[in-house]
Amino acid sequence: MRMYDIIDKKKKGKELSDEEIRYMINGYVDGSIPDYQMSAFLMAVYYMGMSDNELLEMTIAMEKSGDIVDLSAISGIKVDKHSTGGVGDKTTLVVGPVVAACGGKVAKMSGRGLGFTGGTIDKLESIPGYRIDISEREFYDNVNNIGVSIIGQSAEIATADKKLYALRDVTATVDSIPLIASSIMSKKLASGSDKIVLDVTVGSGAFMKSVEDAISLASKMVTIGEGAGKETVAYITNMDIPLGVSVGNNLEVIEAIETLNGNGPDDFNEICIQFSAEMLCLAGKGKIEECKIMAKEAINNGSALKKFSDMVQAQGGNKDYIYDIDMFDKALYSEKWIAEKDCYIEHMDTEICGKTSVILGAGREIKESDVDYTAGIKFYKKTGDFIKKGDVIAELFSSDKDKIKQAISFLKNGYRFGDKQVEKQKTIIAFVSSSGVVFL
Amino acid sequence: MRMYDIIDKKKKGKELSDEEIRYMINGYVDGSIPDYQMSAFLMAVYYMGMSDNELLEMTIAMEKSGDIVDLSAISGIKVDKHSTGGVGDKTTLVVGPVVAACGGKVAKMSGRGLGFTGGTIDKLESIPGYRIDISEREFYDNVNNIGVSIIGQSAEIATADKKLYALRDVTATVDSIPLIASSIMSKKLASGSDKIVLDVTVGSGAFMKSVEDAISLASKMVTIGEGAGKETVAYITNMDIPLGVSVGNNLEVIEAIETLNGNGPDDFNEICIQFSAEMLCLAGKGKIEECKIMAKEAINNGSALKKFSDMVQAQGGNKDYIYDIDMFDKALYSEKWIAEKDCYIEHMDTEICGKTSVILGAGREIKESDVDYTAGIKFYKKTGDFIKKGDVIAELFSSDKDKIKQAISFLKNGYRFGDKQVEKQKTIIAFVSSSGVVFL
Repeated sequence: MRMYDIIDKKKKGKELSDEEIRYMINGYVDGSIPDYQMSAFLMAVYYMGMSDNELLEMTIAMEKSGDIVDLSAISGIKVDKHSTGGVGDKTTLVVGPVVAACGGKVAKMSGRGLGFTGGTIDKLESIPGYRIDISEREFYDNVNNIGVSIIGQSAEIATADKKLYALRDVTATVDSIPLIASSIMSKKLASGSDKIVLDVTVGSGAFMKSVEDAISLASKMVTIGEGAGKETVAYITNMDIPLGVSVGNNLEVIEAIETLNGNGPDDFNEICIQFSAEMLCLAGKGKIEECKIMAKEAINNGSALKKFSDMVQAQGGNKDYIYDIDMFDKALYSEKWIAEKDCYIEHMDTEICGKTSVILGAGREIKESDVDYTAGIKFYKKTGDFIKKGDVIAELFSSDKDKIKQAISFLKNGYRFGDKQVEKQKTIIAFVSSSGVVFL
Repeated sequence: MRMYDIIDKKKKGKELSDEEIRYMINGYVDGSIPDYQMSAFLMAVYYMGMSDNELLEMTIAMEKSGDIVDLSAISGIKVDKHSTGGVGDKTTLVVGPVVAACGGKVAKMSGRGLGFTGGTIDKLESIPGYRIDISEREFYDNVNNIGVSIIGQSAEIATADKKLYALRDVTATVDSIPLIASSIMSKKLASGSDKIVLDVTVGSGAFMKSVEDAISLASKMVTIGEGAGKETVAYITNMDIPLGVSVGNNLEVIEAIETLNGNGPDDFNEICIQFSAEMLCLAGKGKIEECKIMAKEAINNGSALKKFSDMVQAQGGNKDYIYDIDMFDKALYSEKWIAEKDCYIEHMDTEICGKTSVILGAGREIKESDVDYTAGIKFYKKTGDFIKKGDVIAELFSSDKDKIKQAISFLKNGYRFGDKQVEKQKTIIAFVSSSGVVFL
């Protein structure tokens, strides 16, 4: 078998055999297939795509290239949730405790933020003392005892994906839907959960810019998950507008706590209830509508907030912060962006919103950057809202005064104002499962 | 400027600027752009193509990446001829002397054979004493005095092409028409001639399998040549059938001598007259029909043969061979393939014919292989011919008896026999110039 022939076959649109796929992934990981052949292959995939079978075989080969997390020490059905990334996406912080409060098990390994999307781990570290690097034993115990634990990714999972992603990143082959699907799913399959709920974001603040592409990506990931024997469903959610009001690490933790207190922004609350219910449903706790009621109840009766507090305490964090959000550090500087005339917000470029938070210090330009936990933005008015002269459109926070000036000026590029009210967009657009696509 | 952005731009079908093209080629040659980025770019070109301007800039950057041959020491207009490769193509051996006999100047640097196509240099070396490595001074002097000299390529021309071709060869990106065009033309532009006649072969023994592709390649090369300020024309010629009767090194030299004596096979003679006339026409010796008459006359009056003899002598070869072809070494073994029944030859796979000659020892499997100058094939009957039981279809020659058995058995796979006479194909299919395509 030769890599040359595999490239040529893919280039001409022929389907690769299972053996060819395994030969390629294993050869790339062990170094016998060079980067320059793999990058030619990846570019051919960009144009020719991959069949469902090719994609499943490739994802499984990638999954098997690294450690595979064993969660068997945790009793019950473990359901994972994964988002393809967004601005203001603090969903895991709410969904984990809600599911735990309803008897589900959430053993979640999360990542750090990079570029304009934040990372759950960075957000949690804004709670003083919170440890993302507890031992495996503690992790299993916490999930068994509390129902939820959120830690950093320590195992060396999906080695092939790590190497492939680094290559895609420098050869302009990141934006290929089958390659994105295999990358995400190889890690999900290796992460040990039994079932998977995917949040595929779409819009100006997401990697997928059209609903069509988002559904295509979701469908491929669902097909891979099901093919690998793990029940998988996906929601297509709107990221053409920031999620909730707050963007930034401790600002988002505070918003998550407010949501667990029943006072969350409508769009964010809707997403949290839907995802919690879906995870409970997959865990066999009831039908989706029943699970929604359970999830709402867990918020209303305070049991979800208690789970969050328990998790924080179990991981070394100061749980007093959870019950007194005024304890969180505040940014040294803030500035309000005031409306100069009456008008509607017709559009917000959500990627620009995310990049603005990075300028303020909330995110990372490169992997090694430090994060300012207090930096961020509050979006008091969003797309579709009417604003009157003098209203606060948004408020920016940072430890660096100069950055605020720069950030406001940058953020303004992301807005389009006008005289007409645009229709408010749905937060949850569609549901994708092995049965097909349902628009919501 | 970043190679990443150049790949991404090409991938999306946008046109690259001149600066981007130069940055890319220069960076690849100096090693600052790695193979894995270039191979992704090449695969993107396979799908997206290149605009005329991109192609011209890339070819010129490739030309400038190595030595540029200076032929100014040779007086008059130097016209180069280049074939994209074929089986039985000994055209240069006839065209060079004919053009010289008519007052033209041919300063030709040729290559060795590789794979199933032969090389002019190997053929000439089958004449005892012929030196392909004469000094630059001798080369210029010979062209000035005789009108023709054929040597091996010694200058390090088009360094970028060498590196790019090696990469294309292992990443399945050889078969891209713009990449082929830039590869050939970068070398032609660097080779110092003033004008260029291209022979773009098409059919089972050529790299281009369809007339459409051959015209596309020819048009791109003509556009590049003209864009670089060198008048360039191309002929599309038939390589769905071997050219002439003989394939193999000294067998082809003998056939060239016979043709210079006025006894060449019709198809080969037609090509030689057309190309000689075209070269003379570009050199300003007259109109194409006038030049054809001159070329025929140079054969009829023996002046072309004399030029060949003079060239051989000037380069150290024994010119007695030219006037007594029986002096050439003969293969130790030969075998005739005899027809078993009356029928027509409906098709010959010319690549298989070429590969058969390699099996016999006439060509190189790899660059380092030795060549058996006496090995080869004579095709007494070709596509469209009627053969009677007992006729000799072909005769095979080799210094190795075992190879002949193997070769005959392999060659038979390349023929299709039948009851109906197929129409004889044209030898010269079309003419491509800056004015467009004319079917002949």
